Amino acid sequence: MNEFKRRSAEINDLLCVLNVLNWDARTQMPAGGSSPRAQQLATVSALAQEKLLDPAYAAAAQAVSGDDVENRAAQQALDAISALKRIPAELTRELALLKSEAQDVWARAKAANDFGLFAPGLTRMVELNQQLAEALGYEGHPYDALLNMYEPGLTVETLMPLFEQLRAHHVPLLRAIQERPQPRSEFLNRSYPAAAQKSISLALAQKFGYDTERGRLDESAHPFEISFTRQDVRITTRIQENFLSGALFGTLHETGHAMYEQGVRPELSRTVLASDLLGLYAVGGASYGTHESQSRLWENRIGRSKAYWDLHFPQLQAAFPEALADVDTAAFHRAVNTVRPSLIRVEADELTYDLHIMLRVELERALIGGELAVKDLPEAWNARIKADLGLDVPDDTRGVLQDIHWSAGMFGSFPTYTIGNVMASQFYAAATEQMPELEDTLLRGEYATLLGWLTDNIYQHGRIYTPHELLERVTGRGLDPQPYLDYLSGKYGELYGLAETNETAQKEQIL
Amino acid sequence: MNEFKRRSAEINDLLCVLNVLNWDARTQMPAGGSSPRAQQLATVSALAQEKLLDPAYAAAAQAVSGDDVENRAAQQALDAISALKRIPAELTRELALLKSEAQDVWARAKAANDFGLFAPGLTRMVELNQQLAEALGYEGHPYDALLNMYEPGLTVETLMPLFEQLRAHHVPLLRAIQERPQPRSEFLNRSYPAAAQKSISLALAQKFGYDTERGRLDESAHPFEISFTRQDVRITTRIQENFLSGALFGTLHETGHAMYEQGVRPELSRTVLASDLLGLYAVGGASYGTHESQSRLWENRIGRSKAYWDLHFPQLQAAFPEALADVDTAAFHRAVNTVRPSLIRVEADELTYDLHIMLRVELERALIGGELAVKDLPEAWNARIKADLGLDVPDDTRGVLQDIHWSAGMFGSFPTYTIGNVMASQFYAAATEQMPELEDTLLRGEYATLLGWLTDNIYQHGRIYTPHELLERVTGRGLDPQPYLDYLSGKYGELYGLAETNETAQKEQIL
Repeated sequence: MNEFKRRSAEINDLLCVLNVLNWDARTQMPAGGSSPRAQQLATVSALAQEKLLDPAYAAAAQAVSGDDVENRAAQQALDAISALKRIPAELTRELALLKSEAQDVWARAKAANDFGLFAPGLTRMVELNQQLAEALGYEGHPYDALLNMYEPGLTVETLMPLFEQLRAHHVPLLRAIQERPQPRSEFLNRSYPAAAQKSISLALAQKFGYDTERGRLDESAHPFEISFTRQDVRITTRIQENFLSGALFGTLHETGHAMYEQGVRPELSRTVLASDLLGLYAVGGASYGTHESQSRLWENRIGRSKAYWDLHFPQLQAAFPEALADVDTAAFHRAVNTVRPSLIRVEADELTYDLHIMLRVELERALIGGELAVKDLPEAWNARIKADLGLDVPDDTRGVLQDIHWSAGMFGSFPTYTIGNVMASQFYAAATEQMPELEDTLLRGEYATLLGWLTDNIYQHGRIYTPHELLERVTGRGLDPQPYLDYLSGKYGELYGLAETNETAQKEQIL
Repeated sequence: MNEFKRRSAEINDLLCVLNVLNWDARTQMPAGGSSPRAQQLATVSALAQEKLLDPAYAAAAQAVSGDDVENRAAQQALDAISALKRIPAELTRELALLKSEAQDVWARAKAANDFGLFAPGLTRMVELNQQLAEALGYEGHPYDALLNMYEPGLTVETLMPLFEQLRAHHVPLLRAIQERPQPRSEFLNRSYPAAAQKSISLALAQKFGYDTERGRLDESAHPFEISFTRQDVRITTRIQENFLSGALFGTLHETGHAMYEQGVRPELSRTVLASDLLGLYAVGGASYGTHESQSRLWENRIGRSKAYWDLHFPQLQAAFPEALADVDTAAFHRAVNTVRPSLIRVEADELTYDLHIMLRVELERALIGGELAVKDLPEAWNARIKADLGLDVPDDTRGVLQDIHWSAGMFGSFPTYTIGNVMASQFYAAATEQMPELEDTLLRGEYATLLGWLTDNIYQHGRIYTPHELLERVTGRGLDPQPYLDYLSGKYGELYGLAETNETAQKEQIL
């Protein structure tokens, strides 16, 4: 193994170790272990960073002259080193300190409905992220520098017009839905024994193609997927006895993430192309948005389709004979696709979720750009909720204080959820176009055809391509919301019997 | 924090991380994860060793001039560094390679009952361990150098006369027992639902004083205890539906180990005095033998006593109402103390276990001393089994090939099991002497008194003292088998109605 590969493998090993330590902390660790675990994480992080910034590593990367893939890996290493070197050590230190403090303060502020308590920490967090953006550099808006950490190449200039298109579509569609009667969905909150929820969730994940010889399903407070190379890709779900959809669709969502990681080709294991070097995170997917496109494709496009439940509802009913005794496939399908504006992002349906995201993105972009002051944030939040969702925000706990992201310094990550929705429909449209037989395979529950196509076209490439390059390769164009808008109009037009449902949309609705 | 403390903390963090990775590999990891996990372990081990052998670390240790505890830590670091430096890099490399190869060959040889297949690898393993002994240095027998890695200060000169005393006691006692009728014990192999086995095992562990805010119980093929600082000390057990004793007493055994680790005083966390630097293992106990003394004290001395089951048998019966319907406390107590010679060490009872150990120790000492050739090993094994246990060994699978230890290069570790038995009785005798009220507290199921005494006298000290120093401090003397021999004679004299039961022994038997 050459010097660059050897050093890259060592760094990737350490990132995988960080992932193991975090997985354990979130799923297995007893409460007492948290303080030493933080120290273990800090020690391994520091070592990984030290290895990454070792001048011999940059020299080894510069000496690479191999095939396209090797050259890409070397270039990505050099880019990450260069970015890390631009961030002043003092800023890194202060950000790390503030992140751990601000999350505690945020949790207390949320519990007490006291935005004033969180405001000073948030103000400092915005300032430090502005400094971070300046250090990293950008051409257009300072927010671009932060976006770039989660979605390489994405800019405000691309994002904002895209969001305008989405809002112009989503808000009228939501209004139209709100004028129609709602389907029954009370049965989703009946009693669903936890063990059965876990076993059917896992069975459905395996049916999609999740390989449990290289993975496992556990429970955690917040569901997630994490990998320690493609050989060990784990998912978690949150089981609530009185809410079936949480564990069920949460598992299908994480399964999409997991199959992406399991599909990265073996040669990329232990390389830069399975490492987020800037984030010190072992991950095989191209970006947060690309990853999200796969979780949403499998969860929503497949897992909430009529065809899917036509096939699998009998199995679900057998698992919960009492709770689902008076429910049929059609009723279940309608219930799990109910659109209903809510105050809380993580409880939102497929359509209103984007509105929650866009609100956050617009506000954080304005904060980073200096166009919005932290003190004016609650008012701006509440006004946007009213305008988009028609809801009055009764308190900041259910408003501006609901998400952990800002206290964790994650400015720039929110857009990736909606970008993922848009990409999912682009990829799905390309798959349908390239494989006329796809629809039939899905009607038969043969998910290997879709999984094979996604693996060949997306998963196997790991982080070789930027998200934009990948989209161009697979779909022949950049970010394009049209397939996503068509999908939503078609689906909800049919489900809610809306007049504007057109023929294409009706065809879409079969799946 | 000074330089030595800072560097020691970093090394201990890495050893804790190795323990987390190993715990996960043995309890949670899907099969596919094993190859990348081996690489992650190798990377972290290499980093820990690099940090340990960094000349700046030795310099920092040399510069320490603090209190007794700090000086001890510095001296232990210097000793480990010096030992590691005496081992040629080529020997370390060859040993690591041979260990992984030989374990595979051994597993195949065991499955095929083919000692000839394993013999060449074992021969080389003996040679490399002889070289290791020469590199590490010794005064008396080369085996001393290997012993010292597991039980600092223990020598052949101390060990062999001790073993002679034990054998002179155990063999006649075994013969006497074999002439008496056996109690019924068939009910131990009835059907015991796994979930109930796990929950009662954990409940009994907690009753002893195992703190599950800083620990957890899982299942694994081979039970073990492992710690990532005193704040996170985990145990495992092996549950077999048709064998109650395995999970039950296995858990009590590991609980003894775990309470030792949980009792190490907080100031020793992340220091040399919670690290086996030579073994690259995070551990708070003074030595393997000292650790084993605690697992055996809690499992056997307390957990197999009449008083214990007088208190807890009703709880057990409630957990397994069918399997234990026709069993009473006395019958259960007798059954779990049955002495019956068997070919297999891990299935042996408290008395014959020592005979299995002594056999192995004598043979491995002779191998390392060059007094026994590998080709003559099976014959020597079988002869000793016949002499001590009166059994004919029908095949090497159930004879010389049964244990993994030699293929894993662990020459010198076997004695610690029996040393643990001896120490356990010495510590227990000291506790009884110093606390006349101890017996009454145990009769009432108040284990906090014993745990408190053990914590004050043993656990809290971590690795500050050598095992010999610790024994001297607590009992006023070195290794002394008499309390152990008295305990065994008393216990089995009573259980099997042997004539030679004396009054002291009968008194012992109450507990």
